[in-house]
Amino acid sequence: MSVTFPRGFRAASTTAGLKPSGKPDLALIVCDAQAADVASAAMVFTRNAVTGAPVIIGRERRAALLSRCAQAQPAGLRAVLINAGNSNAATGQQGVRDALACCQAVAAALGCEIGAVVPSSTGVIGRPLQVAKIVNAVPALVSALAAGPEADSGAASAIMTTDLVAKTVQRSATIGGHEVRFGAIAKGSGMIAPRLDSAFGPPSASGTMLAFITTDARICTTDLQHALELASAGSFDRISVDNHPSCSDTVIAMASGQAGGGAGGSAGDSAIRRGTREYDSLCAELRAVCEDLARQIIVDGEGATRTFRINIAGAASNAAAAAMCQQVVNSPLVKCAIHGRDPNWGRIVTAAGNAGVNFDIGHTSLTIGPVVVFQHGSPLPEALTDLRLREALAASHVELRLTVGSGSGHYWMTGCDLSKQYVAINAEYTT
Amino acid sequence: MSVTFPRGFRAASTTAGLKPSGKPDLALIVCDAQAADVASAAMVFTRNAVTGAPVIIGRERRAALLSRCAQAQPAGLRAVLINAGNSNAATGQQGVRDALACCQAVAAALGCEIGAVVPSSTGVIGRPLQVAKIVNAVPALVSALAAGPEADSGAASAIMTTDLVAKTVQRSATIGGHEVRFGAIAKGSGMIAPRLDSAFGPPSASGTMLAFITTDARICTTDLQHALELASAGSFDRISVDNHPSCSDTVIAMASGQAGGGAGGSAGDSAIRRGTREYDSLCAELRAVCEDLARQIIVDGEGATRTFRINIAGAASNAAAAAMCQQVVNSPLVKCAIHGRDPNWGRIVTAAGNAGVNFDIGHTSLTIGPVVVFQHGSPLPEALTDLRLREALAASHVELRLTVGSGSGHYWMTGCDLSKQYVAINAEYTT
Repeated sequence: MSVTFPRGFRAASTTAGLKPSGKPDLALIVCDAQAADVASAAMVFTRNAVTGAPVIIGRERRAALLSRCAQAQPAGLRAVLINAGNSNAATGQQGVRDALACCQAVAAALGCEIGAVVPSSTGVIGRPLQVAKIVNAVPALVSALAAGPEADSGAASAIMTTDLVAKTVQRSATIGGHEVRFGAIAKGSGMIAPRLDSAFGPPSASGTMLAFITTDARICTTDLQHALELASAGSFDRISVDNHPSCSDTVIAMASGQAGGGAGGSAGDSAIRRGTREYDSLCAELRAVCEDLARQIIVDGEGATRTFRINIAGAASNAAAAAMCQQVVNSPLVKCAIHGRDPNWGRIVTAAGNAGVNFDIGHTSLTIGPVVVFQHGSPLPEALTDLRLREALAASHVELRLTVGSGSGHYWMTGCDLSKQYVAINAEYTT
Repeated sequence: MSVTFPRGFRAASTTAGLKPSGKPDLALIVCDAQAADVASAAMVFTRNAVTGAPVIIGRERRAALLSRCAQAQPAGLRAVLINAGNSNAATGQQGVRDALACCQAVAAALGCEIGAVVPSSTGVIGRPLQVAKIVNAVPALVSALAAGPEADSGAASAIMTTDLVAKTVQRSATIGGHEVRFGAIAKGSGMIAPRLDSAFGPPSASGTMLAFITTDARICTTDLQHALELASAGSFDRISVDNHPSCSDTVIAMASGQAGGGAGGSAGDSAIRRGTREYDSLCAELRAVCEDLARQIIVDGEGATRTFRINIAGAASNAAAAAMCQQVVNSPLVKCAIHGRDPNWGRIVTAAGNAGVNFDIGHTSLTIGPVVVFQHGSPLPEALTDLRLREALAASHVELRLTVGSGSGHYWMTGCDLSKQYVAINAEYTT
């Protein structure tokens, strides 16, 4: 189980016929909170200046829900409809009309307002959405909601594009005396370097990544939004496969409020509220869910055979460290060196030097795994490091630690290697 | 002939033993202006925060020459000593001492001041320079200066690293009634995306690229520096193989003043001066030399099989257009699509969307070669474009034209495709 592990959710998937492979391509997650007024939802989207129609609609939904929450009105979502095979992006106004037609079909079948349904799409850019195929598939999809726990893995698979494995998370924690459950599914392998529109993101970042998180926590939409933005900035914003943020990156969290904690509306007395220890616990759990999904995405990056994390410390600011991390994690030369287990560490130091941030090379040191290779601006003798370095580079995950001075700024990002398979996936298999 | 085509220059190359291949690795270009006071020199270097020892020394030389020029004193260079096989970068203070020792050997052999010699290095980062090998090779190098026209091609080959072909330019123009000659050699294939420290560069850019330009124009150092900065911003700063600016990128121009135009010092009456039509002509010629070298570098980019240019127009500013060009030219997804002749043009539009610059997708159009694929925010029917698009993508060079509104901002950059061979060069052949 994943998204149906928390109380109050159902999920389903089916085949609408959008993927050339003929595999399942349509998924539905439904929040069935008994008391609709305790449900809430939060969303973050790509910062790409080009956005798919589902992101345009999602942003409108988010604004409406936050406004309703501020007025102490019910502010939850009933359903998220997700398709793979077509991103419905760069499709003009027709794309928005198409996405709304699909939402309307779901709303009619579930008996809810269209405003309680959010669409989400991934796949080829710039092709009209095949609306009839989706609308025709909705009745079967809604019928399949009765399928039970099996439905989760079907949904996680249906949203995949070039992913090799389905990505799911399931966890629970005791918060405020109640067991709070979390579930999630995500997809993402290429066009991955999310820069989500949270208040906490780095100045820049990039991929199509979709993630859908459910929880039965009782929390209002405003507080859930804050928690999701924090969690995204600490997880999805810190991975990059190819430094190309997608026009469709989306993370949606839905809370059913079914975890217990008494009655009450979205602003009810028993809700987990910002500023409390319980809220901090929920934020930590939500971040752990997002970190887990982000890790699954980077491990399944297109063509990836190993991963690495660049940790930068001693910078003038966190923003400076983040800018340097971006350069290292996205340098094709660094990625190829990781792929080839090449101890050519000068690529790492010079990549950091390309962030438009000055630092004193005389106070710069680099450690690869447990091996110091560069200290206070000078290289350590190769004879001392070479064998140990090759050993460190043979690991499936490599930790790089770069200290660039004595400032308090720090940041980290996780990336994957660049292999011939990445080129094959993105060049040879033409769409 | 190349660097010795202009009057007043000699060149030579030899094998010092720095390349594992045992190929020639050391080159020398000497300016033999009969009247040393009419010689001048200009330089631009990487903006990487990490710089090799030769760049540190080169910047000091530049400041000294500009200062001398301002005081109407002779401000030329006598020689540039270039080695491949070791970049002498990330080598601490020892690296600076090592580079100066090499310059001193050249100065002694030529009978000039050490301040009239600039070092330039490319190769592996973070390894001590093999000073003794270089110093021992200097006598043979200086003897070889007598070799004549053949010496040029030897120098162009000696500075190569992963380059497959030597890069040279030779051209002449009549400026102010005199035939002015230009010659140049360059190297560069990987770690290429120069962002040079001119006053006209884009906000950001990356590679090891070395270029050495000679001319017999009579021009003072200050005016030559301005002309070189203009030329670099319009050429080297507009190419990217892998978006990883090197710590060693260097362009050096030397003028001998031997083209005629009467007597006079660096500020002499007959010199080509900024603000004149002759100066504009010289700037145009110098830019043509730099564009030619830049084109040769991108065509020989590591693993490159074809090139493309992204032209962006209609942006709010040139800087906005430049930022969008950077994203397109460096997106691995765009580069793989070009490699695979994949008509997946959504990658181009979304890459532009990642520059942190807003634009109206409803006023955005994209043309690939002669084929309009996206117009005013909507895709053209695939049936109309597909065959012609595949034809356009089969060309050895592809022009992409993206209009993002009705602003006056425009820019272009040239890149190359991403192939499996790029991965092989940078991952499989460990250093």
